[in-house]
Amino acid sequence: MPKFNPSVADLAAPPVPTVFAWGRAYDGRRGPMIDLSQAVPGYPAHPDMLRLLSEYAGAKAYTGYGPIEGEDALRRAYGAHLAAVYGATLGAANVHITSGCNQAFVCAAMAVAGAGDTVLMTDPYYFNQETTLAMLGVKVRLAACDPENGFLPDLAGLAAAITPEVRALALVSPNNPTGAVYPPELLAKVFDLCRARGIWLVLDETYRDFLPDGGVRPHGLFDKPDWQEVLISLYSFSKSFCIPGHRLGAIAAGPAVVEQVAKIMDNIQICPPRSAQAAVAEALPLLAGWREENRLEIAARATTLKETMAGLNGWSIGAVGAYFAFVRHPFAGTPSAAVAERLAKEAGVLCLPGSYFGPGQESYLRFAFANADRATISRLRERLQGFGTIG
Amino acid sequence: MPKFNPSVADLAAPPVPTVFAWGRAYDGRRGPMIDLSQAVPGYPAHPDMLRLLSEYAGAKAYTGYGPIEGEDALRRAYGAHLAAVYGATLGAANVHITSGCNQAFVCAAMAVAGAGDTVLMTDPYYFNQETTLAMLGVKVRLAACDPENGFLPDLAGLAAAITPEVRALALVSPNNPTGAVYPPELLAKVFDLCRARGIWLVLDETYRDFLPDGGVRPHGLFDKPDWQEVLISLYSFSKSFCIPGHRLGAIAAGPAVVEQVAKIMDNIQICPPRSAQAAVAEALPLLAGWREENRLEIAARATTLKETMAGLNGWSIGAVGAYFAFVRHPFAGTPSAAVAERLAKEAGVLCLPGSYFGPGQESYLRFAFANADRATISRLRERLQGFGTIG
Ligand SMILES: Cc1ncc(COP(=O)(O)O)c(C=O)c1O
Ligand SMILES: Cc1ncc(COP(=O)(O)O)c(C=O)c1O
Repeated sequence: MPKFNPSVADLAAPPVPTVFAWGRAYDGRRGPMIDLSQAVPGYPAHPDMLRLLSEYAGAKAYTGYGPIEGEDALRRAYGAHLAAVYGATLGAANVHITSGCNQAFVCAAMAVAGAGDTVLMTDPYYFNQETTLAMLGVKVRLAACDPENGFLPDLAGLAAAITPEVRALALVSPNNPTGAVYPPELLAKVFDLCRARGIWLVLDETYRDFLPDGGVRPHGLFDKPDWQEVLISLYSFSKSFCIPGHRLGAIAAGPAVVEQVAKIMDNIQICPPRSAQAAVAEALPLLAGWREENRLEIAARATTLKETMAGLNGWSIGAVGAYFAFVRHPFAGTPSAAVAERLAKEAGVLCLPGSYFGPGQESYLRFAFANADRATISRLRERLQGFGTIG
Repeated sequence: MPKFNPSVADLAAPPVPTVFAWGRAYDGRRGPMIDLSQAVPGYPAHPDMLRLLSEYAGAKAYTGYGPIEGEDALRRAYGAHLAAVYGATLGAANVHITSGCNQAFVCAAMAVAGAGDTVLMTDPYYFNQETTLAMLGVKVRLAACDPENGFLPDLAGLAAAITPEVRALALVSPNNPTGAVYPPELLAKVFDLCRARGIWLVLDETYRDFLPDGGVRPHGLFDKPDWQEVLISLYSFSKSFCIPGHRLGAIAAGPAVVEQVAKIMDNIQICPPRSAQAAVAEALPLLAGWREENRLEIAARATTLKETMAGLNGWSIGAVGAYFAFVRHPFAGTPSAAVAERLAKEAGVLCLPGSYFGPGQESYLRFAFANADRATISRLRERLQGFGTIG
């Protein structure tokens, strides 16, 4: 057999299907599976969302190829939404729609780094960012986040890691896997650092709509006069609208970045799926109230999780915020994958091992608590208590 | 501003929007624009297709993330379809669904070649294959196709071009831009060459359903006992089902290739858009008769084009077949882009310059005749006759 590209062949199998397989091996002995594995909303899409998706998917108008950068209607709607959220001057020309936020990251990464370049990330990181860079032959450098500091990135550590080969810093806030929400002041300092060093700041804001505190803007970076020369902001419509299966995300950046991304997207996608774009353009203003209700619900789930885990022998929450908690397990020295596999098979609790998110994370598990309702989250206590020790 | 990746920055702007801009500059003096630019079917999707798309897009069942490799229903349906078309043993395990055939090529290219490797293509080539390789830092080597031989690839030329750096040969049959249908015997020899040299054969079969001769199988490569160790076949649902806006394509290959592609797709797409997959799984057998009618219609359009161009002063058809004709223009020495731009603005005929498809193609224009009905194609004669000379 001819060879495969080693940058691809060397990648591990995608993590989520592996974890699902552990879940299928659970015999139900402790009751129904508590699934905290994948970052999917545990509630359904709004009926209006489904109605719009159905309406436009049946329309002849959206069967042809569309603009590479995305439907004008969605670019305008998302630009207006960003302008409102950040109180900044942003419009359609700053927006490139993608087929999901993973694809947005692929485009951002390719636009700024080629094989042999280096991109700086945190440890822990969002695994698809790491595998994307690896498959492109881009080198990854990691800057550790201190659990004592709520897993926030450390400015001095970042500054030390930015050597001349580094083209960009990739961050995620609110963070996957930790849930940590990066304070606006920290993000402002990180931005200034990137500007001073002449590197891009790629900021994945997939979980922006789930900030525990409502009405607060996530950051003021779009106020900076030269933000277009530093910042590339990524977003996903998957979580906020409960439609990951329809594959929509977005990049917000300067027109120069949008122009580069269009060249990449022409190759990897031609255009994002069109009818769903038309549907989301309408849903974006229409479902603002519903999204706010969901934000409150997820915040309540976080509270329930904190109560549930309080004083639980040997378990502790390393960080918790929008969507995720990064939980320290009591089995020091046992690899996190072994803990997660046994948790799935013996306690009926499905979550992701910390090791999937970085070499320094063996003591942790990621709970995607947004996936479960409050009653289900409460049942975790009994499951974890009964789980005992690993031997 | 920090740097962009030179492999991306150096790419030209996507070709189709440039050509559309020429079209917008046409003042209508010769009557309505005859648009032969983009490879899109000139007739609408079937009402049953739209009904299915609408139905599944409104279903809660398809809002979540789906399997990376694609919906089981579509993998099975497409596997069965391939088995019928090629009279071969193929099934769901041989299929990876992608979000369009461009993405299928990106995945195939990444699976087999990394930055610095070489992929062999023909001149002319399908431009997105060339730009895909360029943006990935993969080197492109070109093997010329002789117009005297109907733009078929030349076996000796290919054999000479396969040096140790070459990882794969990328071919398109029926061809874009020439329309040439590669004979099964030629493809068999190309396959044997690739196997003997230990490289992959990536064969884009986007226009397979539009073979001028019905009931003939495109090739017998899937019969070869070791086909899974050589062949990666690509396909698009865009043209055959008139749904490019819904973004679906497919890879047919051995399970080892499917496994590598899944790792890539997890990063660039997570899963292809789901509800459209469910719709196409049903439409694939349901609309077989309608696709056959379209095949006949496109073949009739090819005949009309040949009649229309016959004896037209200075113009000649270099090759014609499924979907495209590669037409030699009478303005020797004038760059094809200048000819195409003037044709658009002054004659109201929109087509793509040969130069977009390779350095050796300045004497040609690509007519995507499938885009226009027979009456419209007939009107080309008067337009081209009146176009006069470039001076
Ligand atoms: C941080 C982060 N970015 C991107 C994504 C991918 O989102 P999408 O479905 O839009 O590709 C996810 C999904 O889990 C995520 O957690
Ligand atoms: C040869 C060839 N491959 C792939 C594609 C892209 O098809 P899709 O819409 O499935 O991405 C086209 C479209 O023009 C094509 O001509």
